[in-house]
Amino acid sequence: MRYGTIEPIKQIGEIAKKHDIYFHTDAVQAIGNVRIDVKDMNIDLLSMSGHKFYGPKGVGVLYVRKDINFLKIQNGGHQEKNKRAGTENVAGIVGIGKAIELAYKDFDNKINYLKELRDYYIKKVEENISDIKINGDMNNRLAGNINISFKEVDGGELLLKLDEKGICVSTGSACNSESQGASHVLTAIGLEPCYANGSVRVSLGKDNTKDEIDYFVDVLKECVYELRKNKSI
Amino acid sequence: MRYGTIEPIKQIGEIAKKHDIYFHTDAVQAIGNVRIDVKDMNIDLLSMSGHKFYGPKGVGVLYVRKDINFLKIQNGGHQEKNKRAGTENVAGIVGIGKAIELAYKDFDNKINYLKELRDYYIKKVEENISDIKINGDMNNRLAGNINISFKEVDGGELLLKLDEKGICVSTGSACNSESQGASHVLTAIGLEPCYANGSVRVSLGKDNTKDEIDYFVDVLKECVYELRKNKSI
Repeated sequence: MRYGTIEPIKQIGEIAKKHDIYFHTDAVQAIGNVRIDVKDMNIDLLSMSGHKFYGPKGVGVLYVRKDINFLKIQNGGHQEKNKRAGTENVAGIVGIGKAIELAYKDFDNKINYLKELRDYYIKKVEENISDIKINGDMNNRLAGNINISFKEVDGGELLLKLDEKGICVSTGSACNSESQGASHVLTAIGLEPCYANGSVRVSLGKDNTKDEIDYFVDVLKECVYELRKNKSI
Repeated sequence: MRYGTIEPIKQIGEIAKKHDIYFHTDAVQAIGNVRIDVKDMNIDLLSMSGHKFYGPKGVGVLYVRKDINFLKIQNGGHQEKNKRAGTENVAGIVGIGKAIELAYKDFDNKINYLKELRDYYIKKVEENISDIKINGDMNNRLAGNINISFKEVDGGELLLKLDEKGICVSTGSACNSESQGASHVLTAIGLEPCYANGSVRVSLGKDNTKDEIDYFVDVLKECVYELRKNKSI
């Protein structure tokens, strides 16, 4: 999902089921962006994280199919059906419940709007910046996610420059800026080294506008230009 | 701490230090009620829980002395100095920080008030209900904590009866009502079996009043009377 590609979860679930293997999917990026039916998709376990769909930070959900038994991850009290000891984060639990309800409200309109923004952003980048590659699948793609690599640009440096202009994006593939070097995922999907270091992931939200994308691409163009110029000196 | 006794943490810490043993203290009941100086008390690790001092539920702190290294408890991202993976509960962290600041504000007045309430409650119970035993140390005792055993009364039943009257107390020693039977701690400190099943812990807070204690003891007296009467039939 880091590169926006929607994987064929249902088919993976079918293969797992056929071979009697439990199937867990990390649906952190999918919740609120993709309709999920755990029965239809043969999902045994699914995890999600509140802050990815306007819910509270630091709260997640692990869905477990009813007849699956698993070892507790935290010992002590008998909370959470004896699987995770510790006084529950009540406000967080209520918050994530409400957030997921809202995440699927007016879903089709939201997704269509995000796709429109996403395609507008891609078109603007293609028109304004040379030597780019869009990572991930273009058809089975998350609505609000675009991951673009810029040739001969360091993703980390680009991130800092954009941050100075008030734009928050992400680079690499790990969920943490401490991870250095080219993403092993980007390398694995065949990206050349001169591109693999310069990937930037943009996540668009329901409240973003085309005006913001115009501003973003203007700044992006300037930053990429500067970084490439410095590199060639 | 479940029975309100303040253990000689400093002396325990000294013994541990002398023998080169790491000393962890569960300070969940102590925070906000006892002054703690980890250096002076030779504490290497200390845990606390937000909801015990008017902070957010589901958020805790593990204090670890700077030069102690320990295995991570959750793998994945590099959050929390690579010791506990997962997006941080930012609101919870800010909340518990503010809560602990407030917990030690006007500390002496708060503690004196709680002691006054506690002693008033004990006096009222002693005057109104027969065959009781106060558990734990009477001198080195937490300000707002009273644990009393009622002879020939089932703590669980008493809890339910009190709950019906809008009073929330706790029974047993485990932090979970699913734990059945007499507390192993109460048995270990020498309480007779006819008392060990009927312990009720009361935690008083800064906003409680003597009027509330009067109401509570009236209800408590009635409930204990009824339960003893039913038992003797």
